[in-house]
Amino acid sequence: MEVAEVAAGMAATSLGNPEGRVLRRITKIKKILEADVASWAGSRVLVGGWVKTGREQGKGSFAFLEVNDGSCLANLQVIIEASTYPLAELVPTGTSVLVEGELKPPPEGVKQRIELKVDQVLEVGPVGEKYPLPKTRLTLENLRDFMHLRARTNTISAVARIRDELAHATHAFFRQNGFRYIHTPIITTSDCEGAGEMFQATVLFSQAEKLAKEIKENPLPTESDVEAAKHVVKEKGDIVAQLKSTKASKAEITAAVAELNKAKETASRLEERSKLKPGIPVKADGGFSFDSDFFKKPAFLTVSGQLQVETYACAVGSVYTFGPTFRAENSHTSRHLAEFWMVEPEMAFATLEDDMDYAEEYVKFMCQWLLDNSREDMEFMVKNYDKTAIERLKLVASTPFARVSYTEAVEILMGVTDKKFENKVEWGIDLASEHERYLTEVIFKKPVIVYNYPKGIKAFYMRLNDDQKTVAAMDVLVPKVGELVGGSQREERLEILKQRILDADLPLEIYEWYLDLRRYGTVKHSGFGLGFERMILFATGLDNIRDVIPFPRYPGRADL
Amino acid sequence: MEVAEVAAGMAATSLGNPEGRVLRRITKIKKILEADVASWAGSRVLVGGWVKTGREQGKGSFAFLEVNDGSCLANLQVIIEASTYPLAELVPTGTSVLVEGELKPPPEGVKQRIELKVDQVLEVGPVGEKYPLPKTRLTLENLRDFMHLRARTNTISAVARIRDELAHATHAFFRQNGFRYIHTPIITTSDCEGAGEMFQATVLFSQAEKLAKEIKENPLPTESDVEAAKHVVKEKGDIVAQLKSTKASKAEITAAVAELNKAKETASRLEERSKLKPGIPVKADGGFSFDSDFFKKPAFLTVSGQLQVETYACAVGSVYTFGPTFRAENSHTSRHLAEFWMVEPEMAFATLEDDMDYAEEYVKFMCQWLLDNSREDMEFMVKNYDKTAIERLKLVASTPFARVSYTEAVEILMGVTDKKFENKVEWGIDLASEHERYLTEVIFKKPVIVYNYPKGIKAFYMRLNDDQKTVAAMDVLVPKVGELVGGSQREERLEILKQRILDADLPLEIYEWYLDLRRYGTVKHSGFGLGFERMILFATGLDNIRDVIPFPRYPGRADL
Repeated sequence: MEVAEVAAGMAATSLGNPEGRVLRRITKIKKILEADVASWAGSRVLVGGWVKTGREQGKGSFAFLEVNDGSCLANLQVIIEASTYPLAELVPTGTSVLVEGELKPPPEGVKQRIELKVDQVLEVGPVGEKYPLPKTRLTLENLRDFMHLRARTNTISAVARIRDELAHATHAFFRQNGFRYIHTPIITTSDCEGAGEMFQATVLFSQAEKLAKEIKENPLPTESDVEAAKHVVKEKGDIVAQLKSTKASKAEITAAVAELNKAKETASRLEERSKLKPGIPVKADGGFSFDSDFFKKPAFLTVSGQLQVETYACAVGSVYTFGPTFRAENSHTSRHLAEFWMVEPEMAFATLEDDMDYAEEYVKFMCQWLLDNSREDMEFMVKNYDKTAIERLKLVASTPFARVSYTEAVEILMGVTDKKFENKVEWGIDLASEHERYLTEVIFKKPVIVYNYPKGIKAFYMRLNDDQKTVAAMDVLVPKVGELVGGSQREERLEILKQRILDADLPLEIYEWYLDLRRYGTVKHSGFGLGFERMILFATGLDNIRDVIPFPRYPGRADL
Repeated sequence: MEVAEVAAGMAATSLGNPEGRVLRRITKIKKILEADVASWAGSRVLVGGWVKTGREQGKGSFAFLEVNDGSCLANLQVIIEASTYPLAELVPTGTSVLVEGELKPPPEGVKQRIELKVDQVLEVGPVGEKYPLPKTRLTLENLRDFMHLRARTNTISAVARIRDELAHATHAFFRQNGFRYIHTPIITTSDCEGAGEMFQATVLFSQAEKLAKEIKENPLPTESDVEAAKHVVKEKGDIVAQLKSTKASKAEITAAVAELNKAKETASRLEERSKLKPGIPVKADGGFSFDSDFFKKPAFLTVSGQLQVETYACAVGSVYTFGPTFRAENSHTSRHLAEFWMVEPEMAFATLEDDMDYAEEYVKFMCQWLLDNSREDMEFMVKNYDKTAIERLKLVASTPFARVSYTEAVEILMGVTDKKFENKVEWGIDLASEHERYLTEVIFKKPVIVYNYPKGIKAFYMRLNDDQKTVAAMDVLVPKVGELVGGSQREERLEILKQRILDADLPLEIYEWYLDLRRYGTVKHSGFGLGFERMILFATGLDNIRDVIPFPRYPGRADL
């Protein structure tokens, strides 16, 4: 067959096989339920989903199935007659079905939405006898033992949709404000603040395991093996020397030299191999050696993309990151994860005021987005978890945030007489969660931005204020979760930044690249970080951060 | 001050300080240059950016600055008179400026866009004598030594904007097709296919280093220390016994018991501590022990979110991931990174045909998006790197992809007479890059989808076809980069999947959760993965993958 012919013959194939197309013919249940009954009634549709509950009726002559396809919280009621398919195979909870039929308005007087009268069952995925999730509601905590099935519950699928909406809201907000999305690195060699709380990314264990296995199959040469090989070299050398001195034939000498070279090679290979050390490589001083690790030095999982994204802010203006970050803290609270997602905008020429404005607008934007796009799932949260969830979104979307300086906030808290704080309030302390929540929940009853914190409790890169005592930092505190956003104007003045690094007992060398941003065309710039899971907790009113990320990672657990 | 008073006083603050707002008052250069000269002329604007080139003119009476703010590739021409600011401080390349002035059309006859006549210089970030980037163009390879400054070059900032556009195109495409964005985990304990090529995430090194430091300051107790402590316990015990037998006072006995308890505590603490072993913990069999690691077992950086995202596809229907993935391969090519971003959609009820349709549509959508949104940056690529880049986008956006089965593709390649392949072609081989590129570049001259590959060369989760020899896999091959997308229909049949796992010499136990998806309401489903950096290479025509990700990671290098 000629190439051209074959290629021509393929043209037909490129149209594909319409029989094989299923997904595009399926109608999502969300679309059916959102529309007027009138506009759908009588239409034929193909629907695919999972049976939430099923029951046989009319002495087994037909069955009602509540089918959910994940496109929305609500189920579609499906009616199937016994003549169409063995009903007993369809009714177990969790069964998957791909069914076709006609949409019909429910019988008059029955308070129910449109239903599907099925006349064709195309696919069924049965459920074994012991479906792992019981019909009675498991607690969210128990559900965490079924990480692979929990997305099939109302709560976790609603969270997934809300999370998706908040991610889209994030991209929409920054795009419409002219920000560029930058992917900062996950593996980093530059972050060394608090290195003890970072995960290290390494191949040393697998290297050592590979070597151990190899040594087991092929033991290392001993010293005497090496000596013996060296002895052979000497012998072969002597032979060459002798042949040369006795003026042997060229061919004889060449052959002997070849043998000598072979012996030399063997000896050096053995010697090299005898030096291999099983286990993790160690330096002369006893510390671990990372020379043979993938990056030839210790590398860690990022705790923040801020420093790196500053290099882009100082080149393309307004940018943001949105990606996973990591803390190896041995923290068992309902507010901490070892792996979580952060949104970190960074803006050239922005002051602290700009920073606060954007943080406020971004949080408001997300709240309004959920009110506009996630009403059904939010109502579910209100009904099942937090009566005030929707009210809170409305409040935050519509009310200007309060703004108080740290000094003012401390004054307010010191004046509180109706509550005794566990942590004493005085100027200079890092506000504790109880203080933050009191400010936002009791005093202001809405989000509060606290700014200009004492320099002693904040990071080196935050801009020193003229009072020399505070830095241009800000935190956004919200009811229910406390700190949602932390940000600052960055120190753009080279000499002050150097001094702040030294004051923090950090080595200047590793920040040379960061200092370069101030050496060459420095600009005032600001940014903030928003913990994405905290925002979901805030929005949904759920209590535990492990339930608002699809696969939570915390001490001892990294299921799947 | 009363709390209520303070809170009321804050209301004014919440309006913020308008003087402090800079960013919102800045006009982006992109906006200025995109508009009609007529509509802007005479307007006053505030502009912030960096000087690309500057020169003094008219015997130093004024200066021309080409200012770039990263919002687009083009610069704004800025004119400043010497009376406004010392010109010598403004002209060095890299200087940052925040300037205000009036937009003016250029003098008649001069072929140039609108320019800014500056009358106020608000901020200047000077450049030291030795700007690290020379004016003469560095190669992209040399630029990689300036990871923190390379975003200031035309090429890397254009790539950043194109990358941002492709990320937005990705979210837009999947959202408008009803997909939900799911964050699959970075750290995973489940992926063990080819574990040798994965990075391990660990805290064992930092734990060991912390312990070593602690032991240095406070040496471990010796055996005799422990013995001595135990001896003290015995003595204190004897005293208590004696006091009791001599009917001493309650107070005396209580005091002695307290001393005994203290001694016991000390002894057990010493004994516990004497068991501490410096270094990496080892099991009885000599292997490393991960019992004290963060997750109490080995944990790795993900190579793909597919298996995990299937749990969501089998619950909420159409979903996708977009996040970083990792390979610890010691690969030094221009096509491989140790950390790269992948887009992985997964669709319940979808067949291989659906899968191919979505892959084709998604790639077309991205190409059209760049034609619509990145014209200036794409023209830069055409001018500087790849003359055919825009033509290629147009071709792909508008032409149906060819589709050939693997068997047909092998037949075509075996019929090739005008080229000698390095790797022999026969049924059963994994197509090499030379074959893939020949198919798409020479035979079809457009993207080709090859489907139904031999089962022996593909992963266990791909659906076995009725011929028992091939699986429902597909690869999208495109000119310039070869394989851009790989996908498959997944094996939804429990028994066949089990057999395929066993055939692949993998342990069933670790896939029990994955098998559960088939045990309980299994559905046909399909998905694919697109290497995001490969797509950028394809779009821009750049040659090296290290130049299309902001912070490339490869053997020996993880700068910043």
